[in-house]
Amino acid sequence: MSSKDIIDQFFNPKSIAVIGASKNPMKGGNRILINLTRNNFKGKIFPVNPNAEGEIFGWKFHKSISDIGENVDLAIFYVGNKIIPGLIQECIDNGIKAVLIEASGFEDGGAVGLALRDKIREITDNFTKLRIMGPNCMGFTKIEGDSNDPDEEKRGGLFTGFVPFFQYKRGNIGLISQSGMLNGGYLSYIFSRYPHMGFRYSVAIGNKMDLGETDFLEYFLHDDSVNVIPIYLEGFKNPRKFIKLCREAKKMPNKTIILTKGGVSEIGQRAGKSHTGSLAEDTRLIDGLIKQCGVIQAYNFYELFQLADTFSKLYITGKIFPIKGNVSMTTGSGGAGTISADLVNKYGLNFPNLTDQANALFDELYPEWMPHNKFALQDTWPTMEKAMMNKISPDIVMKKINDALLNEPEVEGLFSMMFVAKIFHSTTNFESVIKHLNSFSKPVFFWILGDAPSVTEFRGKLDEFNVPNFTTLEEMVRNFAALVQESKNNKKFTEYQKENSN
Amino acid sequence: MSSKDIIDQFFNPKSIAVIGASKNPMKGGNRILINLTRNNFKGKIFPVNPNAEGEIFGWKFHKSISDIGENVDLAIFYVGNKIIPGLIQECIDNGIKAVLIEASGFEDGGAVGLALRDKIREITDNFTKLRIMGPNCMGFTKIEGDSNDPDEEKRGGLFTGFVPFFQYKRGNIGLISQSGMLNGGYLSYIFSRYPHMGFRYSVAIGNKMDLGETDFLEYFLHDDSVNVIPIYLEGFKNPRKFIKLCREAKKMPNKTIILTKGGVSEIGQRAGKSHTGSLAEDTRLIDGLIKQCGVIQAYNFYELFQLADTFSKLYITGKIFPIKGNVSMTTGSGGAGTISADLVNKYGLNFPNLTDQANALFDELYPEWMPHNKFALQDTWPTMEKAMMNKISPDIVMKKINDALLNEPEVEGLFSMMFVAKIFHSTTNFESVIKHLNSFSKPVFFWILGDAPSVTEFRGKLDEFNVPNFTTLEEMVRNFAALVQESKNNKKFTEYQKENSN
Repeated sequence: MSSKDIIDQFFNPKSIAVIGASKNPMKGGNRILINLTRNNFKGKIFPVNPNAEGEIFGWKFHKSISDIGENVDLAIFYVGNKIIPGLIQECIDNGIKAVLIEASGFEDGGAVGLALRDKIREITDNFTKLRIMGPNCMGFTKIEGDSNDPDEEKRGGLFTGFVPFFQYKRGNIGLISQSGMLNGGYLSYIFSRYPHMGFRYSVAIGNKMDLGETDFLEYFLHDDSVNVIPIYLEGFKNPRKFIKLCREAKKMPNKTIILTKGGVSEIGQRAGKSHTGSLAEDTRLIDGLIKQCGVIQAYNFYELFQLADTFSKLYITGKIFPIKGNVSMTTGSGGAGTISADLVNKYGLNFPNLTDQANALFDELYPEWMPHNKFALQDTWPTMEKAMMNKISPDIVMKKINDALLNEPEVEGLFSMMFVAKIFHSTTNFESVIKHLNSFSKPVFFWILGDAPSVTEFRGKLDEFNVPNFTTLEEMVRNFAALVQESKNNKKFTEYQKENSN
Repeated sequence: MSSKDIIDQFFNPKSIAVIGASKNPMKGGNRILINLTRNNFKGKIFPVNPNAEGEIFGWKFHKSISDIGENVDLAIFYVGNKIIPGLIQECIDNGIKAVLIEASGFEDGGAVGLALRDKIREITDNFTKLRIMGPNCMGFTKIEGDSNDPDEEKRGGLFTGFVPFFQYKRGNIGLISQSGMLNGGYLSYIFSRYPHMGFRYSVAIGNKMDLGETDFLEYFLHDDSVNVIPIYLEGFKNPRKFIKLCREAKKMPNKTIILTKGGVSEIGQRAGKSHTGSLAEDTRLIDGLIKQCGVIQAYNFYELFQLADTFSKLYITGKIFPIKGNVSMTTGSGGAGTISADLVNKYGLNFPNLTDQANALFDELYPEWMPHNKFALQDTWPTMEKAMMNKISPDIVMKKINDALLNEPEVEGLFSMMFVAKIFHSTTNFESVIKHLNSFSKPVFFWILGDAPSVTEFRGKLDEFNVPNFTTLEEMVRNFAALVQESKNNKKFTEYQKENSN
């Protein structure tokens, strides 16, 4: 069976058995059923529990796997570790080929756990008779339609974790994680906090007793619905294959991998060992490996999701990624300009010098008492003062400056500071400003401040149009720098972008 | 006149003249009057404008400074740069000793600006006849009472900037900034986004033609209402004095300085020069200078305010600052534990080994299939599973683990991961949990995730009780590390904390 077919068996089952299904809402075996049924799983469900009677959510309880008597494509286990080897034998006996184990207590559970793992290896003939996802994982999520799709039939997908999701959006992100939290509490936080972020898959691979990160990564590389692949790993199952796949991705025009590696320090490795049984790895070897991969690195979960969001937006809007790192900025605050210039330098970017054409325009727009910079960082405050003195709309001047910077041949993108506040009774039509800036093929990033409700409102508007926006200057600069890293040494990538940009 | 008396003249005027006062709400000279009057300035106001008639907000317009005919303690200028030298002469002639210049176009405005500055130097006899704040600044703010104080008379203070504030809280932070934005748009964003953060002063020093950062820093060091002094600078006016004051602060039990230096790169210095006319400084010299100061360094505005918030809270709650950097953590996610362990290592902290007493307790609380760590990082998920199986409230087990860690002699603080979500129908009484954890003299930091409304609600609750809380692991660890840096080599500090802790 090909690698793709194996994953398809997990992602596209027609029938699922939930071993450890329960009527008790405090139990994971109950919440898995909630997650499946409320999110519109279209196939059959067989709840299995020797002690349960009757039915749950319309599905009849079965005493055992053998009792089901129908074809089962996927079995999900939410039971204690010790009885799992026996149940796996029962799965094999009943022709089940795919098992998702959510319980822990194997590689992460000391000598007892390791003995259980060895037993499973033996029973499955080293995973030839049956393939396993997990153990110690929170399952996976495959999103077919938004949770608020007007057509109820289109909502949902396949949700196998024991933390139920009720709010989500389908998109171009395919997440692979060795922390269950990223298909659980943290992902639900992301869905709720950043409702514009769309996911296609989220896969918690757990201890990866059998299937690991490379199996899912390979699948995502060949799945056109996925552009951005954030990965959290505590250990590499097959470093050589991982590097190979990352290098392939780097050559593909529509794929970006972002990696967060946990357990890079000695104390982190001790933590990782008790978490997923990951073995200690030499930090220098890991560093070298990650460098060889050419993937974007994120150093914590927040950064991982923020970078995924940025890349996701730029793929959706078909922007041309910067190659040289030449960026421009308009700011209403000189202080923010100074700090940004330091950050631009820190992250290897540059504000290039302006052409005579841009300088001539700015000579007109700036007042005599405050000459403009000759490089692509413009403090626009003086132009606003001059415009107001001459009764010209500041919006028109702002548009001229932004357009001039984006039209500079050396400039590859724009940072725009936006102060939004109700007290200023601005007449600005944000939506038309956003639409206009989005008509450029160069990426525009916003730094937003103002009163909290206005900031929330304007960020929501930018997210709606897939324009990256930040509340810290450093995040804005760091995210732009990641685009440069991604397009570097990868002409094909940028050329594809150019050919396909609007 | 002593340095304190000079600043007092600005901070405690009985009468203020606003030169450039205007009825036009689009003009800064109008907004300064709004800021003064709506925020309850208790003294007299003299609006000055040769072209205005009648009165504004109940105060009669004067044609000129000489026209006022009453004592003026402070004059605020919102007029073009070219007429300022003449007006300053008029101030001197009328006995005015303190002038705040908000206009730009001096050190930052090329040759014309520099000539204007020299003229002012001459007129004021090198600032002996009259003292100047600014130019190119957004004024200062002194908060006497919260904007929502039930007693209307207590609200407000002295608000001299041209960005009006309507929502703010009095607290123990005294901000000094060479970016007007930090007494303008950004500060209003902070007030609105983090309404629990209390400020006593915010001072935008602009080009510091006369008064500079050391004058205000010295004042704050001797003002008991200030504990935390965040500073943004683009250049040092008097580096030697700055170092001296920072060293003094380091010895004081109740003062913490946090510094963000803009213009550390060549491009940043070019930006800074056009912003505040700050001269280029050798980056290595600056680094050395900052190291000599022993101040906490922040690398962007967001970090500056976040660190200020953390220190502000710990001063209010009288926590004992960590010295060794030994911290503990409870997490419901092993992945978050692994990443945190890496971060703890990155920031020079440590999870110390546990005593036999703590290990014995955890032996009881953890299930057989998942042994606990022998160091101060505890993945509590297995204990929750065991508790639920034994029908024990998870809250009770959680409390036991937190208490045991905080009572470990080597442990100096706790990181607590908290997942808050409506779907879990938690019975936890957050307020009692927070109150209990706050009864320890060791600082407790929270990392919060869950659905967005619950996160907002719980963070609000933590802020109300002055408990630092974060949505990224790195910020949590980095802020704790700053406490260690602040107490290092400063026994007096920590001993004071111990003596004064509850």
